[in-house]
Amino acid sequence: MKPVLVLHGPNMNLLGERETELYGDTDLDALDQQLIKEGAALGFEVRTHQSNHEGELITALHDAKKWAVGVVFNPAGYTHTSVALRDAVAGIDIPVVEVHMSNTSAREEFRHRSLIAPVCVGVISGFGVNSYQLGLHALRGILAGKVASG
Amino acid sequence: MKPVLVLHGPNMNLLGERETELYGDTDLDALDQQLIKEGAALGFEVRTHQSNHEGELITALHDAKKWAVGVVFNPAGYTHTSVALRDAVAGIDIPVVEVHMSNTSAREEFRHRSLIAPVCVGVISGFGVNSYQLGLHALRGILAGKVASG
Amino acid sequence: MKPVLVLHGPNMNLLGERETELYGDTDLDALDQQLIKEGAALGFEVRTHQSNHEGELITALHDAKKWAVGVVFNPAGYTHTSVALRDAVAGIDIPVVEVHMSNTSAREEFRHRSLIAPVCVGVISGFGVNSYQLGLHALRGILAGKVASG
Amino acid sequence: MKPVLVLHGPNMNLLGERETELYGDTDLDALDQQLIKEGAALGFEVRTHQSNHEGELITALHDAKKWAVGVVFNPAGYTHTSVALRDAVAGIDIPVVEVHMSNTSAREEFRHRSLIAPVCVGVISGFGVNSYQLGLHALRGILAGKVASG
Amino acid sequence: MKPVLVLHGPNMNLLGERETELYGDTDLDALDQQLIKEGAALGFEVRTHQSNHEGELITALHDAKKWAVGVVFNPAGYTHTSVALRDAVAGIDIPVVEVHMSNTSAREEFRHRSLIAPVCVGVISGFGVNSYQLGLHALRGILAGKVASG
Amino acid sequence: MKPVLVLHGPNMNLLGERETELYGDTDLDALDQQLIKEGAALGFEVRTHQSNHEGELITALHDAKKWAVGVVFNPAGYTHTSVALRDAVAGIDIPVVEVHMSNTSAREEFRHRSLIAPVCVGVISGFGVNSYQLGLHALRGILAGKVASG
Amino acid sequence: MKPVLVLHGPNMNLLGERETELYGDTDLDALDQQLIKEGAALGFEVRTHQSNHEGELITALHDAKKWAVGVVFNPAGYTHTSVALRDAVAGIDIPVVEVHMSNTSAREEFRHRSLIAPVCVGVISGFGVNSYQLGLHALRGILAGKVASG
Amino acid sequence: MKPVLVLHGPNMNLLGERETELYGDTDLDALDQQLIKEGAALGFEVRTHQSNHEGELITALHDAKKWAVGVVFNPAGYTHTSVALRDAVAGIDIPVVEVHMSNTSAREEFRHRSLIAPVCVGVISGFGVNSYQLGLHALRGILAGKVASG
Amino acid sequence: MKPVLVLHGPNMNLLGERETELYGDTDLDALDQQLIKEGAALGFEVRTHQSNHEGELITALHDAKKWAVGVVFNPAGYTHTSVALRDAVAGIDIPVVEVHMSNTSAREEFRHRSLIAPVCVGVISGFGVNSYQLGLHALRGILAGKVASG
Amino acid sequence: MKPVLVLHGPNMNLLGERETELYGDTDLDALDQQLIKEGAALGFEVRTHQSNHEGELITALHDAKKWAVGVVFNPAGYTHTSVALRDAVAGIDIPVVEVHMSNTSAREEFRHRSLIAPVCVGVISGFGVNSYQLGLHALRGILAGKVASG
Amino acid sequence: MKPVLVLHGPNMNLLGERETELYGDTDLDALDQQLIKEGAALGFEVRTHQSNHEGELITALHDAKKWAVGVVFNPAGYTHTSVALRDAVAGIDIPVVEVHMSNTSAREEFRHRSLIAPVCVGVISGFGVNSYQLGLHALRGILAGKVASG
Amino acid sequence: MKPVLVLHGPNMNLLGERETELYGDTDLDALDQQLIKEGAALGFEVRTHQSNHEGELITALHDAKKWAVGVVFNPAGYTHTSVALRDAVAGIDIPVVEVHMSNTSAREEFRHRSLIAPVCVGVISGFGVNSYQLGLHALRGILAGKVASG
Repeated sequence: MKPVLVLHGPNMNLLGERETELYGDTDLDALDQQLIKEGAALGFEVRTHQSNHEGELITALHDAKKWAVGVVFNPAGYTHTSVALRDAVAGIDIPVVEVHMSNTSAREEFRHRSLIAPVCVGVISGFGVNSYQLGLHALRGILAGKVASG
Repeated sequence: MKPVLVLHGPNMNLLGERETELYGDTDLDALDQQLIKEGAALGFEVRTHQSNHEGELITALHDAKKWAVGVVFNPAGYTHTSVALRDAVAGIDIPVVEVHMSNTSAREEFRHRSLIAPVCVGVISGFGVNSYQLGLHALRGILAGKVASG
Repeated sequence: MKPVLVLHGPNMNLLGERETELYGDTDLDALDQQLIKEGAALGFEVRTHQSNHEGELITALHDAKKWAVGVVFNPAGYTHTSVALRDAVAGIDIPVVEVHMSNTSAREEFRHRSLIAPVCVGVISGFGVNSYQLGLHALRGILAGKVASG
Repeated sequence: MKPVLVLHGPNMNLLGERETELYGDTDLDALDQQLIKEGAALGFEVRTHQSNHEGELITALHDAKKWAVGVVFNPAGYTHTSVALRDAVAGIDIPVVEVHMSNTSAREEFRHRSLIAPVCVGVISGFGVNSYQLGLHALRGILAGKVASG
Repeated sequence: MKPVLVLHGPNMNLLGERETELYGDTDLDALDQQLIKEGAALGFEVRTHQSNHEGELITALHDAKKWAVGVVFNPAGYTHTSVALRDAVAGIDIPVVEVHMSNTSAREEFRHRSLIAPVCVGVISGFGVNSYQLGLHALRGILAGKVASG
Repeated sequence: MKPVLVLHGPNMNLLGERETELYGDTDLDALDQQLIKEGAALGFEVRTHQSNHEGELITALHDAKKWAVGVVFNPAGYTHTSVALRDAVAGIDIPVVEVHMSNTSAREEFRHRSLIAPVCVGVISGFGVNSYQLGLHALRGILAGKVASG
Repeated sequence: MKPVLVLHGPNMNLLGERETELYGDTDLDALDQQLIKEGAALGFEVRTHQSNHEGELITALHDAKKWAVGVVFNPAGYTHTSVALRDAVAGIDIPVVEVHMSNTSAREEFRHRSLIAPVCVGVISGFGVNSYQLGLHALRGILAGKVASG
Repeated sequence: MKPVLVLHGPNMNLLGERETELYGDTDLDALDQQLIKEGAALGFEVRTHQSNHEGELITALHDAKKWAVGVVFNPAGYTHTSVALRDAVAGIDIPVVEVHMSNTSAREEFRHRSLIAPVCVGVISGFGVNSYQLGLHALRGILAGKVASG
Repeated sequence: MKPVLVLHGPNMNLLGERETELYGDTDLDALDQQLIKEGAALGFEVRTHQSNHEGELITALHDAKKWAVGVVFNPAGYTHTSVALRDAVAGIDIPVVEVHMSNTSAREEFRHRSLIAPVCVGVISGFGVNSYQLGLHALRGILAGKVASG
Repeated sequence: MKPVLVLHGPNMNLLGERETELYGDTDLDALDQQLIKEGAALGFEVRTHQSNHEGELITALHDAKKWAVGVVFNPAGYTHTSVALRDAVAGIDIPVVEVHMSNTSAREEFRHRSLIAPVCVGVISGFGVNSYQLGLHALRGILAGKVASG
Repeated sequence: MKPVLVLHGPNMNLLGERETELYGDTDLDALDQQLIKEGAALGFEVRTHQSNHEGELITALHDAKKWAVGVVFNPAGYTHTSVALRDAVAGIDIPVVEVHMSNTSAREEFRHRSLIAPVCVGVISGFGVNSYQLGLHALRGILAGKVASG
Repeated sequence: MKPVLVLHGPNMNLLGERETELYGDTDLDALDQQLIKEGAALGFEVRTHQSNHEGELITALHDAKKWAVGVVFNPAGYTHTSVALRDAVAGIDIPVVEVHMSNTSAREEFRHRSLIAPVCVGVISGFGVNSYQLGLHALRGILAGKVASG
């Protein structure tokens, strides 16, 4: 089993509570359990982490470098504003897949640009909680050598 | 088996020949065969089509409305310039997933905006030929009701 | 009876099917019949054509130059992106009236600019199928010398 | 006979005197008489008003709400700069048709955006004095229910 | 009792009639009476004025300089377009508080910038008719020396 | 007594020390005591919190959802850069009033846009420490039903 | 003696009272008397007019067409926002010289563009009350045929 | 004799008919004959093709890859809007020279940017039909190794 | 007699030869003689200098500081591009008046901004050779204390 | 010995590990030791701190105000996005020198603007670890009175 | 033999030394000899000149007007920044062809706009030293009347 | 002793005379003597040069290539406008350090971008005359191999 980090950005702890028309009503714990189970089916030992702190997310990415083979990362609100998270992703040598539950290109103008995506392998957005599962699938493909890291 | 359209935009016929460092060396026929096989495993009868003509892609989308349950669409170069394709996607009532082999956000500025994405359910980009397979997975999730159509 | 071309751009073949809250439920054939009838009342022999192909629309404009006294043109999605259609309009010496069923200025930002309008005589937008009929009226006025072409 | 307001914006009192290559040589009185006559043929009792004052145009719109079934409005130079007129149009519940004698999209860049058009039913521009007559025709269509008010 | 001007910009005379989902159903007279009463409780003799004319609003500000200790000003549609009103506010030496009933930052892009706010003491927006009352409170604070005039 | 959160953003702990010509010389403790007292007079049990950490402010907003009836929030330097705080405000179902001590529209260009304001009920800026008190007044009005939450 | 209009825009009635560090302490009457006297020395019968109303300024320009040989015009705050005044200047066939007391290019960004200047013969700005006198000199030169109108 | 493709974009079929003050009165057949003759003198077997269809131009470029040593390409109206044609040029490994009959930098703003030029060897514009001949000369130079492709 | 520098920028040596419809047919020597004569009538000893070199114009401004009481400066093509000339003007403590023969605001977009004007006392443009004479008049006013330098 | 803070922003803890072609292979501890030693030679007692948290960096700046004579600050990824850090620097009265190891102007567009630099004394970028040492030198100069703070 | 000026802009004296991967290793003297020889074959007496001084290039263009039938001009770094050179080209009545050795549209954004091209007959870029030879060919065509001067 | 060029751009000859609140009162000769002395202490034989001519600065850079090991360059007003100087720096193979006496990021918007910095090793700005000395220190570090040339 290959260890993988699923990293959730700010406000994801409200999953299932806030803006449920946009994000559905699964809560974060349920989602994490689901990802651990589905990850296992793909040969991944999934560990999950959520933080509202940009600095803590940066540190989690730094740490992942030491133990994980890849990261599925939903930077949420920091997607569009954080050069520091971009630098963190660029500074580790494991593949990172950016995921979003909502279709960011269909929302406000300021959500159309991701500062982080250019240093990730790729992006998946718009499929609700399924975006994470597709992220795990994508990671499996990357590790199987189907596509080069970023 | 649910019928699904995999629609390839302009220049995709050169797959395996052009810019192989970016797109890999699988050719389009091989990719299509692979998608038909993998689609079958997901319960889809995949039909594929490629065109360099914007108008033909529009018509293919119109037609799909009559026979398919969903579309995996790589608009390629038309992604960033075609309001007409956007209107075609918006004008049919089946879910469309936009896919890109390369990570468009890591390329030229003019590739960062998709005119079509806002009317698709979601977008997958950066995973090489795997982007299409993830697109089929995404479509299965959508049809299973995990996410509402865009 | 003076021959006139009514030219419909991409996706107009879906009229009556797609986005009916925006475009109403008259289909294209019905609309064309109506325009032929109303055109006749204005002294016009109306011929209609629709294409999803930018190139075919260009060619139709070129051809019109040889047989028609004017054109009522709904460039639809190509309105905002086609320099080639603009050049086609500029390259023929008969008056062209641009029409839109929806009020484009009330829609997405990218629909606010028409590349084609500056080389037309004028623009009519927002009156549903009535925009076409007003277009025929406008053409009659132009040909009656009330306003100079372009 | 349904009462209709034809409202002329700033400098329209110079019609027939200024920039005649752009606006023709009919003067405003003549135009008003013509519109009253043509309006009658369409079942409208046309009343006309012109003002160089933004505030007076706003008040005229407010008043129209009480007596008219619709407005044909040429905001002229205020088209591109007046949020207050936009709010006035949005604040009354009768349909307003924006008209321009010249093809504004073929003139200076700052004339390409109308602040008022998005809250009108539609726009007609470029047909000289005929734009007003087409505006009356459009209004008849709107009132006949062919298109919903803006 | 200190004399204060409450100045209402264009279209505010429609208060209670237009866009009631945005502005509520209190009409302007009722609001003015309420402000006079609440102003009295704060030690203010409130005089109110409304105009749709930019020039009349300018003159009202000039006059206020001679008799009032401060102004609560809702420039409405002129907020975003009037340099002349800005100059009028800057040209008088009594404090002006800008108020808006709606939350302008949550509306159209062109309502996000106020040309007048930079020369006011401060801005209050989004609290319906209560914005005016908060404006009077703010003025009392300014006159009590809690904050320096703009 | 209804519980209310007064939330201070980054650098507000320096109040009374830094840029006193802009912010006055009351320090944060004194301000908090004043707000608790004035809040009580309005029927509010005011609890205050300050943090320099974006993540901590997000969490404070999440928590407030569980115990407070509303928030008076000065996002300070995060006003213009934090999508994550915007999402936090949007993700809780109690009214939030944005306040600023200085008149942000009179300062540097980058302070003119608030990312957070569009999801607040309204904004108060420019009245020094009085902005907070006006914020409490505004909140009372909102809770009294004078205006709908954002 | 050739009749000339000196036209003052909004807030110029405050001359000598407001922002005296920018505009000096001569009041408008004194300035007008001075211009009448200096105009006489140049062979001009100077008539002056000031208005805070955009509409009144437009009408004054229209009228000038009937009696004056030229205009010295300080559009003040309307300089940067009024297409209607631009159209008024363009619509009369006598030369107009735009003048400003302050050096507008040294002030706020939004004062750097004049919508009116492109249809004037030329512009003079930055010389205090002397700008008007230079405007009269310029007009004399224009009428003496040294430069073609606009 | 080395085979070369001369590819003409949309509206070039109108050569000699439309906008002759801009493009001269040679028609396309005459031009093609001339280029075949002049090409022969340079050691080229010139084959020519014109299409109004973006897709057909893409396919022609793909085909050229199989038989030609280079392309002289006038993308006409597609120059400024077609990412798909850019990708086609980038996807073939023979040198492409972009030519324009008019001096595009002296025309409308939207003609100043070529999306295709960055992936061509170079650009020649402004010399009428001579631009094509210079294009053939340039191609000879490239093939003679004077400059590297792309 | 007070010494004054009249400084001509690049291409002014072609005066009377180039673009005479824009600049008239007086040549530079004739203009200089005229300015010397007219300057004398105003109490100025005018010395003139022309250079096509930005560096030489900078040095001429530096030198003027030592002998002149003011400068009338036509920076011509350097107006819009030279920060170095701006710094030179800002670095000397004598008043500089910027003049232009043509009405720069009526020409190409890139001529609308002067980098130099903000550090001059004022600007005069559009009056042909008369602009220089007005510049001398303006300088006399400045030196007479009618307006403060810069 | 004067106490000085050397403050490292996000991701600097990866120094020597990440992007070594850009940042070299010295690690942060080694760098800190080097700076302590070199600082001592300049008469400084250097204390160093690194954090990935924006809030912690803000607090460190606030604290420095109490014990340090100056700060050498590398805001790293927060340079381009943090108004809060700018406010922290502006809010303390000791000189701050901004340093960057890489030449930020030679990297991505979004790294070209520093929000923090305008409130620092100056900026040093592009000299690798040497940038810090130059920062200490600069600080010595500032404290020696060679240049005024901010 | 018709006299022609080949004018080289700044840094061209380094040809063959600097950035040889971009410009090749022919030096300027060798290039000039080659052009003189090839020019002779075309019936031109080629004279060459290089300068790093904008002013000297301007003067060289002015002079050419007196002795040359046309100019082949590589403005190099001044291409994108010099209004003064544009004015010089516009001010002489002989045809000028702009040439660049590199494909400027494939380089940095700021090299995409030429201020000079709009007043030249046409532009040739991207063919190394061959660009100059094509420039001479183009000039021959222009003089032979194949295309009108810009 | 290694030879080094210290190159001063336009207006630096006024050092100590102009804007002394910005640049201090040391004059250029004194500064040069100081730099020669301090350079010597660092093992450099410093030669200095100042010019107001862009062309002369270009030539000085070209020459330096032949005799110097590096350059400390203050491009002053040409920093923001000269592509030609950028090309000169890029065209020589010795390290160049850009220095500014003032903190350019704290001044006008147009001074925030340096066209030259991206091809220098690094930039130092804001430390008065000390910026030059830091530049020499930086150069020593570069030559000692602490950082690779640009």
